[in-house]
Amino acid sequence: MTAMERRKQRLAAFIRQVWDEGDSGAADNYIADMYTIHHDPGDPWEGKILDRAGFRDRVRKSRAAFPDQRFDIRGLFADGDSVVMTWLWNGTHQSDLPGFAATGQTIRTSGVTAYMFDSEDRLTGHWQITDRLGVFQQLQRNRQDHFRS
Amino acid sequence: MTAMERRKQRLAAFIRQVWDEGDSGAADNYIADMYTIHHDPGDPWEGKILDRAGFRDRVRKSRAAFPDQRFDIRGLFADGDSVVMTWLWNGTHQSDLPGFAATGQTIRTSGVTAYMFDSEDRLTGHWQITDRLGVFQQLQRNRQDHFRS
Repeated sequence: MTAMERRKQRLAAFIRQVWDEGDSGAADNYIADMYTIHHDPGDPWEGKILDRAGFRDRVRKSRAAFPDQRFDIRGLFADGDSVVMTWLWNGTHQSDLPGFAATGQTIRTSGVTAYMFDSEDRLTGHWQITDRLGVFQQLQRNRQDHFRS
Repeated sequence: MTAMERRKQRLAAFIRQVWDEGDSGAADNYIADMYTIHHDPGDPWEGKILDRAGFRDRVRKSRAAFPDQRFDIRGLFADGDSVVMTWLWNGTHQSDLPGFAATGQTIRTSGVTAYMFDSEDRLTGHWQITDRLGVFQQLQRNRQDHFRS
């Protein structure tokens, strides 16, 4: 297996274990001592450098509203020290978000994340865009349906 | 120069000439006979397969509201038949958009685009996410400022 293939496999395992299954402790096996959120419009941690405890906290808080969330990895592109992942996502809105009470409805979105690795194949950060207008519109529609019923 | 480097250079030239400078005819030098918009939430052409005339039409219509638009390419990642581009973008809102009259204000956004190439290094399509909520919020703010003044 090439180094590029190994990183793709590690990234897919990280997504499944940490972000899909919610094992925040397992993040320690994948991320470097410091993890930088270089660019992630709308993410509360954008611009921050997280240590491992900070990263686990981000995983727990980010997953709280959608505890059954699942990433569907559409493509992995390795070049230099990065692996870029294109993805679809869905999750059931089970806990409240600011301005949006839980509705039990499925929310779907998509995004692209460029992950950076160090020489030991540990994740050092990411540069991400998500379709947050799509999420916002679904949350608004579900809220209206909720008030109507 | 490797094939991967050549594709990165071609993509950067395509972005500059076609999307920044607005030379829609130059697209013929870069795209294949058919160009597929595989995934691009919010883009009116999402899911469509365009011939060259259709692509030129998309360029002209997409650029109409922001004729001085500029992409700032942040990263290019080549793997397999794809080159992924991370980018920042800005443009002056000079012509009306549905629901948003032109204000002359600068709009900024960012995105990631995975471009696919054929064996002759021609672009066959893309898979893209843009931060359209960021754009929407800026357009709304500018509209409010406009009514206030």
